[in-house]
Amino acid sequence: MIEIRSRKREEIIDITDRVKELVKGKNGLVVVYSPHTTTAVIINEAESGLLQDIISKINELVPKGAGYLHDRIDDNADSHIKASLFGNSVVIPVEDGRLMLGTWQRILFLEFDGPRTRRVFVKIYETKKD
Amino acid sequence: MIEIRSRKREEIIDITDRVKELVKGKNGLVVVYSPHTTTAVIINEAESGLLQDIISKINELVPKGAGYLHDRIDDNADSHIKASLFGNSVVIPVEDGRLMLGTWQRILFLEFDGPRTRRVFVKIYETKKD
Amino acid sequence: MIEIRSRKREEIIDITDRVKELVKGKNGLVVVYSPHTTTAVIINEAESGLLQDIISKINELVPKGAGYLHDRIDDNADSHIKASLFGNSVVIPVEDGRLMLGTWQRILFLEFDGPRTRRVFVKIYETKKD
Repeated sequence: MIEIRSRKREEIIDITDRVKELVKGKNGLVVVYSPHTTTAVIINEAESGLLQDIISKINELVPKGAGYLHDRIDDNADSHIKASLFGNSVVIPVEDGRLMLGTWQRILFLEFDGPRTRRVFVKIYETKKD
Repeated sequence: MIEIRSRKREEIIDITDRVKELVKGKNGLVVVYSPHTTTAVIINEAESGLLQDIISKINELVPKGAGYLHDRIDDNADSHIKASLFGNSVVIPVEDGRLMLGTWQRILFLEFDGPRTRRVFVKIYETKKD
Repeated sequence: MIEIRSRKREEIIDITDRVKELVKGKNGLVVVYSPHTTTAVIINEAESGLLQDIISKINELVPKGAGYLHDRIDDNADSHIKASLFGNSVVIPVEDGRLMLGTWQRILFLEFDGPRTRRVFVKIYETKKD
């Protein structure tokens, strides 16, 4: 389990190194799973301009406060819709204790309703080596 | 396997309780997989206003009948595109017979070309307890 | 591992038959995982008009060169955002050596920054038969 403290309403946080620590010595499949409904987990490049581009684009496609029904209850319908489009988990093969990420791939936690303290489950399903 | 009967063209159906039944006594990873190409499976909150907001937003982003090539064959190109954006499966850790869902998380089946009878596969990959 | 040669900037390539070959004789779960950050893997129908519709729609939602910060470094911010929305992997149950795909489901590789030579990992996590 990883604990994350976000500092903004929308923020992308690179959690790759923390997942790497947890798969050391393992072999199989890792699931990185967010138990929240206004966050997502994706795999992409962590270049700072790109992270801002991702947030700008999804804010444009799903703007905050655009007359959503759920906003009568809680002011974050957009956060839920954004999270749904990106998905709340990723799976990554693990071999000889290493994540099989490509050269530019990083594991990114997407906060859409921060700032908050969040948790992410990192579950490893071990298999014997091929 | 779960059977679902949708009643509208676009509809979101909460299937959490049915998946819960199937993982009782198990430990590992569950895959909830839709074998259809005009439906999706996501994890999010099941508040009724939010479910309408999700449908309204995706209908706005990918409107029906907007001159799609596939509509010459079958009148549901938008349904396929919507399904592709949300994804056709989710994975959820299972521990001691319980889905490791967060407080507000529910497993949601998204119908984009109903009403129809649909199937969802629920496959459990068991591991020994940690 | 599958090698793919894309011929256009945006292109969808059906890799179902190549994944089928790799799961023969296996039982369990297959993960089809792209290690790239400007490609995606989805499951949907491979009708040629629909494949063009998917590309047209995502190009409309996330147009190339729309003032992205990442474009100062590399001219492909849109490719990364597109890849993030669709996701870089899929999971599919495998039983008795067969992918449990629905009638119309195909495994589709989405190129968003081609033409290039790409790789896709096909990892099988075997379980005993139910």
